[in-house]
Amino acid sequence: MPKALIFDVFGTCVDWRSSVAREVAAVLPQVDAMAFAMAWRAEYDPAMARIRDGGRGYVPLDDLHRENLHRVAEAFGVTAPDDLSTAWERLDPWPEVVPGLRSMKADHIIAPCSNGSIALMTRLAKYGGMPWDCILGAELARDYKPKPAVYLACCTALRLDPGEVTMVAAHNGDLAAARETGLQTAFMPRVTEYGPEQTQDLGPTEDWDVIASDFKDLARKLHP
Amino acid sequence: MPKALIFDVFGTCVDWRSSVAREVAAVLPQVDAMAFAMAWRAEYDPAMARIRDGGRGYVPLDDLHRENLHRVAEAFGVTAPDDLSTAWERLDPWPEVVPGLRSMKADHIIAPCSNGSIALMTRLAKYGGMPWDCILGAELARDYKPKPAVYLACCTALRLDPGEVTMVAAHNGDLAAARETGLQTAFMPRVTEYGPEQTQDLGPTEDWDVIASDFKDLARKLHP
Repeated sequence: MPKALIFDVFGTCVDWRSSVAREVAAVLPQVDAMAFAMAWRAEYDPAMARIRDGGRGYVPLDDLHRENLHRVAEAFGVTAPDDLSTAWERLDPWPEVVPGLRSMKADHIIAPCSNGSIALMTRLAKYGGMPWDCILGAELARDYKPKPAVYLACCTALRLDPGEVTMVAAHNGDLAAARETGLQTAFMPRVTEYGPEQTQDLGPTEDWDVIASDFKDLARKLHP
Repeated sequence: MPKALIFDVFGTCVDWRSSVAREVAAVLPQVDAMAFAMAWRAEYDPAMARIRDGGRGYVPLDDLHRENLHRVAEAFGVTAPDDLSTAWERLDPWPEVVPGLRSMKADHIIAPCSNGSIALMTRLAKYGGMPWDCILGAELARDYKPKPAVYLACCTALRLDPGEVTMVAAHNGDLAAARETGLQTAFMPRVTEYGPEQTQDLGPTEDWDVIASDFKDLARKLHP
């Protein structure tokens, strides 16, 4: 049994797509809000890639979100207010996440291992009521997943060996990197994270240590 | 009104003296447990001072506690088991702390700004039910209070200016350093932290921004 569970957040815990679209629609009624949200998210990985590759020093995701917002707004032919970038602090958890986390918290240390900053994860947890024991993730390593340094920094901060920690994600690539780093792995799918036409991560692609249908099922399977 | 409240923990939130004595008594029945707890705590500041002064690189408090344990055990003529050093993960909150924090959490981000590590503060919060939004403190700065870097690292992690953050402590020295660094300050006394003969920190020594009698009073005074 793992002593701590660390979680991917965007997609795994929260429905960023419909939440960001809601925030965009409230401020930019003239654009297709769902398309805007998807385009904004599409800038996410390239922005981190430059930092992972060493082409740029560590910049918190809050700042990358703001930079990406203005790039996407320009492509949509609109001007976005700077503070729309805080939309990522107001993402709704999938319905079973909070009760599932509460249940897992009774048996384990639970923490996010997200590419979001400590500030962003703290505000997001407050918004959605996610009862983390502490906030871990990319900022501790000043690098971005799937770099091993991020998973290792979370284990080090908890003073646990990687084998005592389970990474939970709805993304096979995240789990592959965590397993490579020595962590245990747990998968549960989010088949509509990218909308009804999603083609990736519809199911597990490896024999992850735990495979669950959702957070409540995961809590049952991880109950000692 | 501050946006975040950060808290000293040992003494301010938890009664380390009687809790450590209880843990010592369970394992070393042959010693004066209260005297042992006080002697152990007396090693705390000198151990950090070497790191603050640059004579030693950053070492998490968990390791300093273990080193200090063996030094104190030797002085008491006993051999202490290594894992007694985890006694510092099982300290009882003062009675009004958890309800006070719950109340403050509704209006503010709340986090520890302790010299304890992320691991130690996480386990201590789980033990005592302290509902932190995130765990901040010395480990973020890899240095020890009252060095300004520790208070600043907490503000930076929250993406707040120092003036938007209030440091809460039962120790005037901690608040003096926080104020020097630009934070707001709140004092409430713990007149028995060091036992019935305590002579220090019986009351505020400066005009701190908020002066309260306990955490419930503090919650009332910080309610927007």
